[in-house]
Amino acid sequence: MKQGMIKLSVLYPNGEGTKFDIHYYLNTHIPLVAKLLGDAVKGATVEEGIASVAPNSKAPFAAMGNLYFETLESFQNSFGPNAAEILADLPNFTNIAPTVQVSKVMA
Amino acid sequence: MKQGMIKLSVLYPNGEGTKFDIHYYLNTHIPLVAKLLGDAVKGATVEEGIASVAPNSKAPFAAMGNLYFETLESFQNSFGPNAAEILADLPNFTNIAPTVQVSKVMA
Repeated sequence: MKQGMIKLSVLYPNGEGTKFDIHYYLNTHIPLVAKLLGDAVKGATVEEGIASVAPNSKAPFAAMGNLYFETLESFQNSFGPNAAEILADLPNFTNIAPTVQVSKVMA
Repeated sequence: MKQGMIKLSVLYPNGEGTKFDIHYYLNTHIPLVAKLLGDAVKGATVEEGIASVAPNSKAPFAAMGNLYFETLESFQNSFGPNAAEILADLPNFTNIAPTVQVSKVMA
């Protein structure tokens, strides 16, 4: 994605008793979000955590989902009105309260 | 980046008294890492944190740096021997102990 774009990162921290259904997330949740936010979304990526830096160490996050927007305004205007419906889908694939980061793409 | 690739994410959590020099990171640290790891690195991205989900809320992370590799082996073989030199550069731009995540690109 190009410099200056806005990246929304939703990070799902691993912990005791946490569950995350990556198949539901990929096949149902991300398409739901894409449908709700429409043209404001310029790209989406998903990663599944496999480790920390040491081999065989547990990943800090079960998964990360990232959405890209042209501007902060287009993110706020598209996400805000749909936040409740998006959040209501979370219990269908996880019991984790995600960490949400809004970033500017620098490189 | 394409499905199945390995993504190394280095996340710098914001906190009381934390400092992060994004200009040094972009202009000196990332080029150093790219030079050390060489052809194993298939892509690199950097994002600067600007907010959490609520407008005007503090970003959980000051910055995120991401490197992409073809395989877990190519990451381990290139990163391992250079980890000490890479880590030794951190005090030049931050006092944050980063969170390190190794992920598989799913989408």
